[in-house]
Amino acid sequence: MADLKSKFLEAYAVLKKELLEDPAFEFSDESRQWVDRMLDYNVPGGKLNRGLSVIDSYKLLKEGKELTEEEIFLASALGWCIEWLQAYFLVLDDIMDSSHTRRGQPCWFRLPKVGMIAANDGVLLRNHIPRILKNHFRGKPYYVDLLDLFNEVEFQTASGQMIDLITTIQGEKDLSKYTLSLHRRIVQYKTAYYSFYLPVACALLMAGEDIEKHTDVKHVLVEMGTYFQVQDDYLDCFGNPETIGKIGTDIEDFKCSWLVVKALEICNGEQKKLLEENYGKPDPENVAKVKALYHEINLQGVFAEYESKSYEKLTTSIEAHPSKAVQAVLKSFLGKIYKRQK
Amino acid sequence: MADLKSKFLEAYAVLKKELLEDPAFEFSDESRQWVDRMLDYNVPGGKLNRGLSVIDSYKLLKEGKELTEEEIFLASALGWCIEWLQAYFLVLDDIMDSSHTRRGQPCWFRLPKVGMIAANDGVLLRNHIPRILKNHFRGKPYYVDLLDLFNEVEFQTASGQMIDLITTIQGEKDLSKYTLSLHRRIVQYKTAYYSFYLPVACALLMAGEDIEKHTDVKHVLVEMGTYFQVQDDYLDCFGNPETIGKIGTDIEDFKCSWLVVKALEICNGEQKKLLEENYGKPDPENVAKVKALYHEINLQGVFAEYESKSYEKLTTSIEAHPSKAVQAVLKSFLGKIYKRQK
Ligand SMILES: [Mg+2]
Ligand SMILES: [Mg+2]
Ligand SMILES: [Mg+2]
Ligand SMILES: [Mg+2]
Ligand SMILES: [Mg+2]
Ligand SMILES: [Mg+2]
Repeated sequence: MADLKSKFLEAYAVLKKELLEDPAFEFSDESRQWVDRMLDYNVPGGKLNRGLSVIDSYKLLKEGKELTEEEIFLASALGWCIEWLQAYFLVLDDIMDSSHTRRGQPCWFRLPKVGMIAANDGVLLRNHIPRILKNHFRGKPYYVDLLDLFNEVEFQTASGQMIDLITTIQGEKDLSKYTLSLHRRIVQYKTAYYSFYLPVACALLMAGEDIEKHTDVKHVLVEMGTYFQVQDDYLDCFGNPETIGKIGTDIEDFKCSWLVVKALEICNGEQKKLLEENYGKPDPENVAKVKALYHEINLQGVFAEYESKSYEKLTTSIEAHPSKAVQAVLKSFLGKIYKRQK
Repeated sequence: MADLKSKFLEAYAVLKKELLEDPAFEFSDESRQWVDRMLDYNVPGGKLNRGLSVIDSYKLLKEGKELTEEEIFLASALGWCIEWLQAYFLVLDDIMDSSHTRRGQPCWFRLPKVGMIAANDGVLLRNHIPRILKNHFRGKPYYVDLLDLFNEVEFQTASGQMIDLITTIQGEKDLSKYTLSLHRRIVQYKTAYYSFYLPVACALLMAGEDIEKHTDVKHVLVEMGTYFQVQDDYLDCFGNPETIGKIGTDIEDFKCSWLVVKALEICNGEQKKLLEENYGKPDPENVAKVKALYHEINLQGVFAEYESKSYEKLTTSIEAHPSKAVQAVLKSFLGKIYKRQK
């Protein structure tokens, strides 16, 4: 596996070089350097889980058959397309959220020479995906399906982002909107499709499968992505900051977190009032009151219950799948996230 | 033609309705209303020349044969895809340029409830294009070519936007960068491909042509698009504000306009110094000095010369084309813009 990771990393350099020499545009030295720097700053700095999982999944679908160099490269290229997609969304998300840091460095748009040019850089990142696909998949029988897949998943992600944005419009802090159904919808569209379904769908296409026939796989992965985000919400408050690598601010930020949604479900009138008065305020005293309430109503227990129920349900769905290879892919995803602490 | 225009306008309502009922996303009433309003605000308010020219071009390629209702609708849908693409770029461009008005109303991001959500709305506009294409062209033999075409042209437009942005980074006002070759490159990529080549390429694909074999058509249209932008730069300074519908501010904005590029070519040392001291400043006195210099070196005459030379060259290229139908398409474009006053 260490070998696959290093091959994955090598593929980045190849793809970047091709993009910097794209014959569809006449680069000047200045613009080539700009893109070069922009890519290095925004694309490869994350955990690369999404990208790597394309190769992992494809390998499992091949049931132990040795992958050729070409297969490894193509699966890596698709993995990188997902990382590019993520970079595109993060660059724009940080602008919209007025964020300061990302992956331990200033957000791209915060760099003095960048500023609002970052919006167009986001667009460029997005545009690199079809360039990569055209360069390496134009002759494949599944080329058009790949284009459709990336288009649909991008549409879903942008739509999820939209509901996230319009439910938290400044000055309309209204907890009554925060329901489990809204939370599920935001999470499913904004995160689950591109983070969980997309890598597996890419691997399935490469393996010659018709993804239209795999709606059950999509369903399981979207469920898993939702579970993953609930964990994320949980860890934001209850995780160890040293382990997760950041200090959560969902309470301060008035986020539609699974925790506040569950709390609103459980609370009595008085507790609800406390939430309304303290949720979404920057003062540590307000935050502490919310956290105390979360303890009082035993949200940790509620989460533990949710976690084991989700695990059971997912396992049952996975084991109902007719293909052992597909089961292996899904189990590998689940194994990576179950009871994660970071 | 009035009839085709009303059919084109009708198609917008159909396409919008489909997008607001897209089964790939679960709309809430709130999010459906948001998209509805956002589309009406940003998509149909322009002159619609680009969109309409798809139908016009397709009709000419059909050499007078009556178009079926389906053909009119499909050509309209492609025309609207170009209008959607333009709306996407304008929404983001206005954010990046901190603009205030667009098409006689406040820029979308200036609306109090919108703000930075506009960046994601731009992304949504872009995402609607493949949704429209999938809804209406998925079964056509040229579907994959349409996807490739829109992807490539979007990439070129974003790349042109990038060089425009990085040559005018705040605090680096340096006229020595403003050359004819830079101007040509910005204009060709940022404007010409999507405004001139894309509509005709759409019509050619619908007519069953292989656009890879029409590089000469692409070349002529990109030239025409460049000429169109030079006119735009000229009218910004020398046009009648009442006719063009706005007061030009290219001089104040330190734009890489064809006028300043030509002026720099013609000027003697002293005149160049005057330009350097006065170009890109908001004060009307500075602007007046630049305009006086433009008159002194007879930029109007230089432009008239450029205009007639361009017309000649374009006509010669067009008449060299083997197909009379394609000639008609190109001549129709040229006829619409030659010596335009607005
Ligand atoms: Mg954010
Ligand atoms: Mg956000
Ligand atoms: Mg979080
Ligand atoms: Mg602008
Ligand atoms: Mg601009
Ligand atoms: Mg102009």
